[in-house]
Amino acid sequence: MNYSEMALELHRKCKGKIEIQSKCEIRDAQDLSTVYTPGVAAPCLAIRDNEDDVYAYTSKGNMVAVVSDGSAVLGLGNIGPKAAIPVMEGKAALFKRFGGVDAIPVCLDTQDAEEIVRTVQLIAPCFGGINLEDISSPRCFEIEERLKQTLDIPVFHDDQHGTAIVVAAALTNALRVVKKELKDCRVVLCGFGAAGTAITKLLLEMGAKDFIAVDRDGILAPDAPLDQTRLSVVKRLNPRGITGSLLDALQGADVFIGVSAPGVVTGEMVRAMNRDAVLFAMANPTPEIMPDLALRAGAKIVGTGRSDFPNQVNNSLAFPGLFKGALDARAKQITEKMKIAAVYAIAGIIPQEELSETNIIPTMFDERVAPAVAKAVREAWEA
Amino acid sequence: MNYSEMALELHRKCKGKIEIQSKCEIRDAQDLSTVYTPGVAAPCLAIRDNEDDVYAYTSKGNMVAVVSDGSAVLGLGNIGPKAAIPVMEGKAALFKRFGGVDAIPVCLDTQDAEEIVRTVQLIAPCFGGINLEDISSPRCFEIEERLKQTLDIPVFHDDQHGTAIVVAAALTNALRVVKKELKDCRVVLCGFGAAGTAITKLLLEMGAKDFIAVDRDGILAPDAPLDQTRLSVVKRLNPRGITGSLLDALQGADVFIGVSAPGVVTGEMVRAMNRDAVLFAMANPTPEIMPDLALRAGAKIVGTGRSDFPNQVNNSLAFPGLFKGALDARAKQITEKMKIAAVYAIAGIIPQEELSETNIIPTMFDERVAPAVAKAVREAWEA
Repeated sequence: MNYSEMALELHRKCKGKIEIQSKCEIRDAQDLSTVYTPGVAAPCLAIRDNEDDVYAYTSKGNMVAVVSDGSAVLGLGNIGPKAAIPVMEGKAALFKRFGGVDAIPVCLDTQDAEEIVRTVQLIAPCFGGINLEDISSPRCFEIEERLKQTLDIPVFHDDQHGTAIVVAAALTNALRVVKKELKDCRVVLCGFGAAGTAITKLLLEMGAKDFIAVDRDGILAPDAPLDQTRLSVVKRLNPRGITGSLLDALQGADVFIGVSAPGVVTGEMVRAMNRDAVLFAMANPTPEIMPDLALRAGAKIVGTGRSDFPNQVNNSLAFPGLFKGALDARAKQITEKMKIAAVYAIAGIIPQEELSETNIIPTMFDERVAPAVAKAVREAWEA
Repeated sequence: MNYSEMALELHRKCKGKIEIQSKCEIRDAQDLSTVYTPGVAAPCLAIRDNEDDVYAYTSKGNMVAVVSDGSAVLGLGNIGPKAAIPVMEGKAALFKRFGGVDAIPVCLDTQDAEEIVRTVQLIAPCFGGINLEDISSPRCFEIEERLKQTLDIPVFHDDQHGTAIVVAAALTNALRVVKKELKDCRVVLCGFGAAGTAITKLLLEMGAKDFIAVDRDGILAPDAPLDQTRLSVVKRLNPRGITGSLLDALQGADVFIGVSAPGVVTGEMVRAMNRDAVLFAMANPTPEIMPDLALRAGAKIVGTGRSDFPNQVNNSLAFPGLFKGALDARAKQITEKMKIAAVYAIAGIIPQEELSETNIIPTMFDERVAPAVAKAVREAWEA
């Protein structure tokens, strides 16, 4: 059986992947009188009189809504809210498995940004955090920004920032292996969607200076026909004013990051890069260039999103610990500082002496990752 | 320790009462590839191509949203959405404990009927049913009605219909004990809010003919200053055209049902009732009349909402099995027929020969109740 058949069988057998459990036993009338009426009135009144007590007496502080409108699900595109549920339930399962965070899918029957924002605002009382998921760009930028401005709990679009954090962590260790500094590297990113934009912003924040973004029409210029969010980022890029194609951009480049489409990178392009080139070919399931081809063309380190090659760069390394840390700190938002703390926490799991071309990032089943990320994120908020 | 202290301690210790669990183990990369990418794409595509498959591959079919705006919580009034969370989490715990139904609190940061309706419509894709809870009247009538008309899943306001079902079940058995028929009884109901209105409608549906509703200003007349929902019910009541106070209404009455306020019924009123009078004094935590007082004044059977007296009439007897049956049948709504099936299923748990003045309704911990209700409700939908 292949993964598709196995997945269909598993999903059908379990009838979905998540369930709600009571944390309290209800064996008799006395249990009922403390879990429910009349005793439950006491925590209700405590919260009425001191809103902050909602974190002491309810599940809010560990509960995350995984919100999607089904408009950009995996590589499947706009499949709608019901078809998106298996992904959101999977995400919820990962939240619990890796971060100990309670997460529940909220798939919305609208793709109107205004309605999405309003709905999330209205359901917020029960949640300690909002994980936006698989919402297409550029709407995702506006939705996240408006929710961040109006809610007092962390709002995090994982497709943007989760991806950015794990790519940055992998790049941090890759550059340690090849002994280069980010600030001295020429970085080329291909695919300027939600993930690409967030990766660009985070790497600039972390010190990248010579950064070129490319989309299907070539190198992005400051007058590219983009939304304001992306245009404001593009204006900070490409200090050498390079124009042309992806091949032009890659001349002498140290780092390639692809969040675009299968096969857009050729061996010729890799050969045009600098010595000790690092490539992250993240298109799923087929990368921008297959690792063996890139390595034969002279690349030093290649990472992908796939579990069947070395250096799997996967969001699951970031979001469970990140939310756990933010929730435990009762952070009101997830700041750049917290994201960068997560980057270095993930990278730091692998000791310097164990780093190698094929070992730049821990696996998802490394149980040290989520606690380390949570601790770093919490400290970054509290600092 | 009293219940309040015990409840505060329990809620603080557990940090709320519900958590999310994964139904699938995630031990290795293969598990991850079936629970999440790449395998998860297969159920997503199946649902995209056949929407009905959402019931086969996701948790929707057993997942209920417990929706409240915190406007009428227990007897505490309008305490808002955050203070309402402990009640909604308690409800979710009962759903699982008694019905095996997964339920999650959705407390809304608005009390605008329009916004509540729209929000519930938008979050509906993940849910197999909507349980409205602790929403004040008359808004609750409009909200429920509009959601029933627009959603293809059951929508059920438990404060109305759950209460109506358990009262009707208790009354059914009480009348068996005193050997009276509902159609021949004079019934007086005090407190014409959400619960009172639903009880009235259900008992009319079940055959009650001589029914008088009373509120704090006395017997309700067909020109009472009420919303349309309630006025249309009032017009069907009071065939003998009685006017005056609760005492006037109770002259010769066989049944009193109180969903009003503590202590509004006196011994004198009970003495004015017919022989073998049945009283349900449901005001919480202090009933309309204490059972001992009513019995001394000549009542034959008294039920309350409390666990420390015989004949506890509690919604938990109805909603878990009712939803379980409706979900298993994949009913698109909860019909009058399904409610009445639940009434007779609950009443039928106690065999005729075991019925007595102090044993007219099963306890919540009678494990036969929810399965019997679920079966009856499912059959009523499928019939």
